[in-house]
Amino acid sequence: MKSEKLQTKVAIVMGSDSDLPVMINAAKMLDRFGIGYEIDFVSAHRTPEKVTALGESAAKRGLFAIIAGAGGAAHLPGMLAAETVVPVIGVPIASKTIGGGGFNDALPSIVQMPPGVPVATVGVNRAENAGILAAQIIGVSDKNVQKLVFAYKKELNDMVYNKSEKLKKIGAEEYLKGME
Amino acid sequence: MKSEKLQTKVAIVMGSDSDLPVMINAAKMLDRFGIGYEIDFVSAHRTPEKVTALGESAAKRGLFAIIAGAGGAAHLPGMLAAETVVPVIGVPIASKTIGGGGFNDALPSIVQMPPGVPVATVGVNRAENAGILAAQIIGVSDKNVQKLVFAYKKELNDMVYNKSEKLKKIGAEEYLKGME
Amino acid sequence: MKSEKLQTKVAIVMGSDSDLPVMINAAKMLDRFGIGYEIDFVSAHRTPEKVTALGESAAKRGLFAIIAGAGGAAHLPGMLAAETVVPVIGVPIASKTIGGGGFNDALPSIVQMPPGVPVATVGVNRAENAGILAAQIIGVSDKNVQKLVFAYKKELNDMVYNKSEKLKKIGAEEYLKGME
Amino acid sequence: MKSEKLQTKVAIVMGSDSDLPVMINAAKMLDRFGIGYEIDFVSAHRTPEKVTALGESAAKRGLFAIIAGAGGAAHLPGMLAAETVVPVIGVPIASKTIGGGGFNDALPSIVQMPPGVPVATVGVNRAENAGILAAQIIGVSDKNVQKLVFAYKKELNDMVYNKSEKLKKIGAEEYLKGME
Amino acid sequence: MKSEKLQTKVAIVMGSDSDLPVMINAAKMLDRFGIGYEIDFVSAHRTPEKVTALGESAAKRGLFAIIAGAGGAAHLPGMLAAETVVPVIGVPIASKTIGGGGFNDALPSIVQMPPGVPVATVGVNRAENAGILAAQIIGVSDKNVQKLVFAYKKELNDMVYNKSEKLKKIGAEEYLKGME
Amino acid sequence: MKSEKLQTKVAIVMGSDSDLPVMINAAKMLDRFGIGYEIDFVSAHRTPEKVTALGESAAKRGLFAIIAGAGGAAHLPGMLAAETVVPVIGVPIASKTIGGGGFNDALPSIVQMPPGVPVATVGVNRAENAGILAAQIIGVSDKNVQKLVFAYKKELNDMVYNKSEKLKKIGAEEYLKGME
Amino acid sequence: MKSEKLQTKVAIVMGSDSDLPVMINAAKMLDRFGIGYEIDFVSAHRTPEKVTALGESAAKRGLFAIIAGAGGAAHLPGMLAAETVVPVIGVPIASKTIGGGGFNDALPSIVQMPPGVPVATVGVNRAENAGILAAQIIGVSDKNVQKLVFAYKKELNDMVYNKSEKLKKIGAEEYLKGME
Amino acid sequence: MKSEKLQTKVAIVMGSDSDLPVMINAAKMLDRFGIGYEIDFVSAHRTPEKVTALGESAAKRGLFAIIAGAGGAAHLPGMLAAETVVPVIGVPIASKTIGGGGFNDALPSIVQMPPGVPVATVGVNRAENAGILAAQIIGVSDKNVQKLVFAYKKELNDMVYNKSEKLKKIGAEEYLKGME
Repeated sequence: MKSEKLQTKVAIVMGSDSDLPVMINAAKMLDRFGIGYEIDFVSAHRTPEKVTALGESAAKRGLFAIIAGAGGAAHLPGMLAAETVVPVIGVPIASKTIGGGGFNDALPSIVQMPPGVPVATVGVNRAENAGILAAQIIGVSDKNVQKLVFAYKKELNDMVYNKSEKLKKIGAEEYLKGME
Repeated sequence: MKSEKLQTKVAIVMGSDSDLPVMINAAKMLDRFGIGYEIDFVSAHRTPEKVTALGESAAKRGLFAIIAGAGGAAHLPGMLAAETVVPVIGVPIASKTIGGGGFNDALPSIVQMPPGVPVATVGVNRAENAGILAAQIIGVSDKNVQKLVFAYKKELNDMVYNKSEKLKKIGAEEYLKGME
Repeated sequence: MKSEKLQTKVAIVMGSDSDLPVMINAAKMLDRFGIGYEIDFVSAHRTPEKVTALGESAAKRGLFAIIAGAGGAAHLPGMLAAETVVPVIGVPIASKTIGGGGFNDALPSIVQMPPGVPVATVGVNRAENAGILAAQIIGVSDKNVQKLVFAYKKELNDMVYNKSEKLKKIGAEEYLKGME
Repeated sequence: MKSEKLQTKVAIVMGSDSDLPVMINAAKMLDRFGIGYEIDFVSAHRTPEKVTALGESAAKRGLFAIIAGAGGAAHLPGMLAAETVVPVIGVPIASKTIGGGGFNDALPSIVQMPPGVPVATVGVNRAENAGILAAQIIGVSDKNVQKLVFAYKKELNDMVYNKSEKLKKIGAEEYLKGME
Repeated sequence: MKSEKLQTKVAIVMGSDSDLPVMINAAKMLDRFGIGYEIDFVSAHRTPEKVTALGESAAKRGLFAIIAGAGGAAHLPGMLAAETVVPVIGVPIASKTIGGGGFNDALPSIVQMPPGVPVATVGVNRAENAGILAAQIIGVSDKNVQKLVFAYKKELNDMVYNKSEKLKKIGAEEYLKGME
Repeated sequence: MKSEKLQTKVAIVMGSDSDLPVMINAAKMLDRFGIGYEIDFVSAHRTPEKVTALGESAAKRGLFAIIAGAGGAAHLPGMLAAETVVPVIGVPIASKTIGGGGFNDALPSIVQMPPGVPVATVGVNRAENAGILAAQIIGVSDKNVQKLVFAYKKELNDMVYNKSEKLKKIGAEEYLKGME
Repeated sequence: MKSEKLQTKVAIVMGSDSDLPVMINAAKMLDRFGIGYEIDFVSAHRTPEKVTALGESAAKRGLFAIIAGAGGAAHLPGMLAAETVVPVIGVPIASKTIGGGGFNDALPSIVQMPPGVPVATVGVNRAENAGILAAQIIGVSDKNVQKLVFAYKKELNDMVYNKSEKLKKIGAEEYLKGME
Repeated sequence: MKSEKLQTKVAIVMGSDSDLPVMINAAKMLDRFGIGYEIDFVSAHRTPEKVTALGESAAKRGLFAIIAGAGGAAHLPGMLAAETVVPVIGVPIASKTIGGGGFNDALPSIVQMPPGVPVATVGVNRAENAGILAAQIIGVSDKNVQKLVFAYKKELNDMVYNKSEKLKKIGAEEYLKGME
């Protein structure tokens, strides 16, 4: 994490440290795009006052986006969205210990927001995409960041061509063996 | 609604007046058991400060239960539970205008709460059951209320026997005609 | 389990000992709040007469709540609710051996009760929350218990702040390493 | 309903008269096969003592099957199965007023029974099939009934051929017009 | 398997030997009740002619029930039901290698049969219950078998009481340790 | 329907005339592409012998595809696929009278076929797409048909441009009024 | 629609005019915030070349966001995201004619994007929220827009208080009558 | 893979090499039927230009089918179908790392295509069936291939009889032991 000295443009928050292994991927993406961020534990149900504090100050502090990850009855993204006009990006997290699998509980809890209070929802456990989306939001007014996102997408594009070439050269069976 | 002069023991809240046709059934049950209540619009996403105010004052005011109804990404019951130690009863509401039907969105948003912050969830649109549950909670320390709930259950029991007798007397086909 | 000498205020029941590893968490919570309880195997489908006996005697015995855990076609909480006016708290349990995962079978079997017979349903496998909810119900007429629940919620709140401080001090990567 | 004078071989029960428009179809099938039956309201949650009474007496009375219809958290078929060794046929009923649609709540509540207590479950709202299944169960020891079921299946088979002939004669467009 | 010399009253069939570890439990139940059976691989999709042969001969051979297990797009039980008037008991099997988990594919494929062609469906992977249901069907005309099923249910009832006694004696924590 | 004199290349079948309003759309597409077809009622559960007859003769008769529509526990497409090596196209049909809605029952019953027996499944109620898919299959060896499908796709493409132009000219509000 | 003279900052697109009654709500929100936009029909499956053209030009044209609505197998938002680094906001649309209801098909088709290609997904049919989210994205670099969004949220907040006051004044029953 | 020298009749594509272990099974089937194919990585979201190139050239190159596998928000099959009149066979792939399991996300993303653009969808992870379906499509105009598919189905049929014989000879318990 080399982002300390940069201006903080994004807050990454989650309710519990059990979400950290997923949410770290948002931070890694922001690192790659040279975007300053803070990362913290903020629980909608255990520290609602921290939700209010972050939400109310976000616009004044000049944040460009808040990335919030939550599982189960996932209220953190929506409650942050209730408190701020800064875009909130929600990451549904698949909990391992209880039923529902993220798809049946965290996803609808985050995405089905009422009129007036959107949450920009990404796929289950897709914190890296939350980081990219934050960079895209920053990118519309910061062309350097937009270029970095463009370059990243080009890398992904190249990667497919490289793998494609390898597949053609060695064949599917050899390729599979190399993956083991 | 004849409950104005009674001590307020239950708060019935919902985010929007579109939930009122369902939530009124909780009030009707409390009326039947002679339990005082207040009823109000409190939106988790539009008036989070009202959620905090109600939650923080609930125990001090001596409330025995809060009944909260919500649809879609239904955060109201859980956010109230985050702010109080008074039992919160959640009613998932099936929204008519968007997909999900209450079962796929409001129910998991309300019931799948994290450790430490339970919501006592009843069935989709079952506000009458939320009223009864509040009466049962009051009833454990107020035997008069408990007796009224017992009597109500007896009525339901009697009703089945009465319908059963009618069915035996006139037969299924006549019974059905009478229902049309 | 130090609760033997306390007055029994809560009955914790489940249909099978395979549910015990989950349901023990309700008992641990009651221990923490100094609430007396009994714990037993009561199967809706194998010992319906035990369901009737427990349900019919619950109010007379002065129980404040019954916590019932069940998986699959989970009838135990609802059948207890049919027999008593004491609040019944239902814990849907995710079975490991058959399809459905708790979310698709035990949850709807417990929560979708008909008018007149509510079950206070908590999240899948969330027996600790059932214990807390029982304490909250007791707490509305026993301010000592209510204070203990309040203190517990404060602990959870503190815990988030402590973890937050640690995260800020050592950074996300170090924090993650410490979790392994 | 001309079945009064016949020996009662099947009990058709449901929790509420709102289920009667569906459950009458089981009765009509038994009428067609000349099988005696009784039809009654028995609610698992409002009259559990009627469940016990019916279940405990079923074998002694020589019943061949019990057909039980229920919606929502549908406990009636399973609780009857808990009380008797007579085959219980469960009909999941799609409730109109609350979310779930039968498929998500009544079906799993009926079919996912634990080891030792099966319910022979038919499709959502398929009470006619419950009637046929009862006839098939009776038919294994009563060849006259088995022949009637066989003849009924032949009728259904003929009906397809007749419709097929008509379709070939008048064409799909005319056929559709005739259906309006 | 000691059932060879008994009259064959039940056919247990499944499409593939991968279903055998589940379906063997139906056979074990029939063994326990002293009921003769045959067990075979019959695939709706790979050997439709075997389905027809079994279905068409079932009544003539005097079978009391056919137990059919299938996973995925599970057509075997329904196609057997199409060919016979003998009761067909369907066991949805949760496949391990593809998505769906039995609950989302095999269960609806088996239970949602059209009017006229019921399948008596049991829970996902609940082959033991299919065996018991077959015994219950046989039991309505063979009181010895009915008594054996009754005795089996009594054993299950006793087992709960025995475990309950042990739990009371040693407490929940010791009980749990003994389960490990 | 002007296709009578053409060589029959496609069989369109469905179990019941209630499926005809949906399945007629497959016929209309084939008419448009000048492809000969037959249309018939063939029920997997009521006329299994018709399934066998159609399946076994399909290749000999030179059929290029069979389009089969079915709802609920939808076995017709899969059972046809069991009997023939001609491609079978399955159309899941949403039944109106029972729970499940096509998505939860007919779709998995059709698409989740075991290894060796594919059904080419299209979307719920999408019989027009089944007709187009049949034309595409015929088109790989009949370039005239392939050209007609190509032209049809061009028409759809043009239609979007035409609507787009209209929208630009009159604006969204006027456009909406014109749709009423 | 008074937005013609404003700089176009948002493109609102949908595959078919049947989506217009929902998507118009995004336009209305942008009108309210004084944000210029274009609105067009762009079908992923019928005009893929229009998708490419819009996606490739979006950044060069200085668009701040693309709002894309789609139902069923909803590919439009994701395919636009594949072609641009401008944030894409996806609106899952509940189709009326086929099964799935938006929640089961359009939502997962839009939200479950692979790493590198996020779509900012809002709730089913929640086009107004897509408009607000676009304004929030624009607002992070345009404080006037941010203030307008803040004012709009204040309006929603006020509205709850006004309704709350009315409810207290006239009571729930009168309030309900006024809603009819 | 011995297929290099054969005329390429099928393209097998997938978005990522993580799909290769599933998709290789389509290739193995084509090998068995002596059908030439190419296999490549083509990502709808990372290389949309490769999708266009393959789709636009498919008919000209004389391809008989394209087999496309994808997971999550699975757009590859549908986007190929948008670009070509050659039949596209879609394989929903169950992703391991995020929620949804193929059944809830990849399947609806592939099968629920709009009018005019069908995808021939097979079961989740059923790439072998996609290979067989491609062979069946080729087989309608190439009787040698059709015969090979017929022979393969006969093999599967024989396999069931062989296993059946073994089961009868050694009994279910021995058979199970042999499977371990």
